[in-house]
Amino acid sequence: MADKVWRIGVAGLGTVGAGLLKFLGERPDFAPAGGRAVIAGVTARSRSRPRPVDISGFRWFDDPVALAASPDIDLFVELVGGSDGTAKAAVEAALNAGKPVVTANKALIAEHGLELAQLAEAKGAPLVFEAAVMGGTPAVKMLREGLVGDEVDSIAGILNGTCNYILTEMEASGRSFAEVLAEAQAKGYAEADPTMDVGGFDAAHKIVILAALAFGAAPNFAAAEIEGIDKIELVDIRLAHDLGYRIKLIASASRQDGGGVVKIAPALVPLDHPLSQAGGALNALFIEGRRIGRIFLQGPGAGAGPTAAAVAADIADVMAGAVRPVFQRKADSLKLLAAGDGGDGTIRAFVRALVRDRPGVIAAVTEALAKAGVSIDSILQRPVNSSGVVPIVLTTQPASEAAVADAIDHIAALDAAVERPRMIRLARI
Amino acid sequence: MADKVWRIGVAGLGTVGAGLLKFLGERPDFAPAGGRAVIAGVTARSRSRPRPVDISGFRWFDDPVALAASPDIDLFVELVGGSDGTAKAAVEAALNAGKPVVTANKALIAEHGLELAQLAEAKGAPLVFEAAVMGGTPAVKMLREGLVGDEVDSIAGILNGTCNYILTEMEASGRSFAEVLAEAQAKGYAEADPTMDVGGFDAAHKIVILAALAFGAAPNFAAAEIEGIDKIELVDIRLAHDLGYRIKLIASASRQDGGGVVKIAPALVPLDHPLSQAGGALNALFIEGRRIGRIFLQGPGAGAGPTAAAVAADIADVMAGAVRPVFQRKADSLKLLAAGDGGDGTIRAFVRALVRDRPGVIAAVTEALAKAGVSIDSILQRPVNSSGVVPIVLTTQPASEAAVADAIDHIAALDAAVERPRMIRLARI
Repeated sequence: MADKVWRIGVAGLGTVGAGLLKFLGERPDFAPAGGRAVIAGVTARSRSRPRPVDISGFRWFDDPVALAASPDIDLFVELVGGSDGTAKAAVEAALNAGKPVVTANKALIAEHGLELAQLAEAKGAPLVFEAAVMGGTPAVKMLREGLVGDEVDSIAGILNGTCNYILTEMEASGRSFAEVLAEAQAKGYAEADPTMDVGGFDAAHKIVILAALAFGAAPNFAAAEIEGIDKIELVDIRLAHDLGYRIKLIASASRQDGGGVVKIAPALVPLDHPLSQAGGALNALFIEGRRIGRIFLQGPGAGAGPTAAAVAADIADVMAGAVRPVFQRKADSLKLLAAGDGGDGTIRAFVRALVRDRPGVIAAVTEALAKAGVSIDSILQRPVNSSGVVPIVLTTQPASEAAVADAIDHIAALDAAVERPRMIRLARI
Repeated sequence: MADKVWRIGVAGLGTVGAGLLKFLGERPDFAPAGGRAVIAGVTARSRSRPRPVDISGFRWFDDPVALAASPDIDLFVELVGGSDGTAKAAVEAALNAGKPVVTANKALIAEHGLELAQLAEAKGAPLVFEAAVMGGTPAVKMLREGLVGDEVDSIAGILNGTCNYILTEMEASGRSFAEVLAEAQAKGYAEADPTMDVGGFDAAHKIVILAALAFGAAPNFAAAEIEGIDKIELVDIRLAHDLGYRIKLIASASRQDGGGVVKIAPALVPLDHPLSQAGGALNALFIEGRRIGRIFLQGPGAGAGPTAAAVAADIADVMAGAVRPVFQRKADSLKLLAAGDGGDGTIRAFVRALVRDRPGVIAAVTEALAKAGVSIDSILQRPVNSSGVVPIVLTTQPASEAAVADAIDHIAALDAAVERPRMIRLARI
């Protein structure tokens, strides 16, 4: 074992792939498990594109699938990206050849994790993906290995740095979602098509992977309940703050019926809660274990350096030779994840109503809630604005979802109502 | 592999050992790595002592060393405790027989980790100790495996729950160290002999282990620089708070010269820093990686449930069959840890002087600092007390240790000085 040379094939030479080559170049002593990692082949969409590392010394492959299946590599690193197409074909080719696979591809694992795990286990080849979630912060290893002496009951966190950056900037600078997004795109913090991030899909990929590991369940992206941050208005961020909360995109999952449920949605978090204090592009995760209690993990969620470090740690892990199921239990025994918030059907809601300023309007709003059987936890009326419209915000005590919906219907039906009230849930943390 | 039965021998049946037997009893499906764990032998000081689990069904051994060496067990779990004596002899017996060892014994690993690692590696037997640090929070695995794709430059944290509980309670209740300690002892939160905890030795064991893993160095408890919390006065906690800080027992380590340096001492942490907000018996750890950036990990640091969960996770890890050096590199190549704070020789200090209230006394104190070449960052004089003594507290800008010592000498020499000023460093975080 000590002298084994692992011939690594790397498909995809963007910032993460280049970062990995740079790291292995700088660390000829990289042998955390005794063996030695040597780059034996690379491939990417363009061979000639300028890169921060010189790739002329590596054997070039035109086709990721050919690299994955090549008898000249022992371990395949997939950094192509995308849930289907080349990435999936190459990973399947490597696993079919019995080769261990290291990937940073969250879409691939969240959408096809079950069939890939079945293939990997049938071929006896490890399939690992630390870099898919929380960049270099080892959340995957923590859930897959570190907490298996307990049952994890729930996890909840901030898993998309772009959304967290946008929400943090909106609050700090008092600018709208559209303005902050445009700036983030100009600076390269957000993609030209931001849908994956701001629509909640990236966070959904990640929580699906973590939930599968935490509960020993099959990833099932199709079932995830997903809401993004694109409808969050500055006024909600401000008024939530006035009531002692911050709006965060919370990805959460709970153990249920031998599997688990998954949800991604903006939610209010108390200002003094650690998840509330994770600002900017940070990622953060709460893990609630039956015996262990609450564990909190926070770190940079992306970036070439951290992500490449996670890929390198996975390579070391494969070199160490552990044999484990991909998702805690044998793939054939995994129950598919479902949608849900893991709760008892009750929620606590933040409700923001815009009403015309007239006598008795607060009484009318609070009566609408009472009629629906929803008790108020806190309420705040802000000064009337120039157009004679006044925002009334409140948080409710726990109530059934149906009762809260009823209350909102009642408020929307008031003569004084300017628009249908906005409702955001309080995080169940 | 899938059907392999691992015959586990457990030495030590206190709360953690009993918790482990309970967990394995409740989880006959515990097979995170495919194999199956079966208790094949137990031993403890007393066979008949009342325990929360029935041990009559397990084979009893009178002698931990005999259990460790028995051909009827495949994996030895050491929960006896103590850095020498039976625990060490039994672990050596198991390793000598080529058997994997799981231990929760921080003193054993911090004080004899190097020789045990050499033995383990010579015999090809894993030696793992997740439960030795931070209870069920997997800090050991994170540093040993999760971050090996990066170089960790420094770690700093709160690793002793008893000290953290005492400091938190002193601040919250306004009681003295002695009062809070006595209460903690009465409630069973602190040992009858509290020296290991409040003297900083327990935190030292733990940071030595984490530093060895983080930097690939040899644990060296003898060299650790250790100061406890027994000299922290309520007045310092209050005055530090007035200046925007909280006093915490900070265990820290930095990479240096191919190894690392370790220090344990009370230090001031800004109130809005996550380490400052980890109250009560919580443990918390900051990890600074060259590529990964800052990772923060927090969780319960002790307790039978969490610690037993960490032991069970280690058992699963051994069952998974990974082969790794005990401390990142081969034991024979490890450099011993040394004492130090990893800094450049400058410190920032909190200084609390008690002086007699007379005109010009603040000027005299600030001149004493100026004479030593130490610049003040913030200064606060509190109202004079009934005996005509006034506390003056200040924080300094970065200055050499010698200059700060000089300044304190100058203040102590003032006519108005009631006692030698108290100095506590600001945490280097």
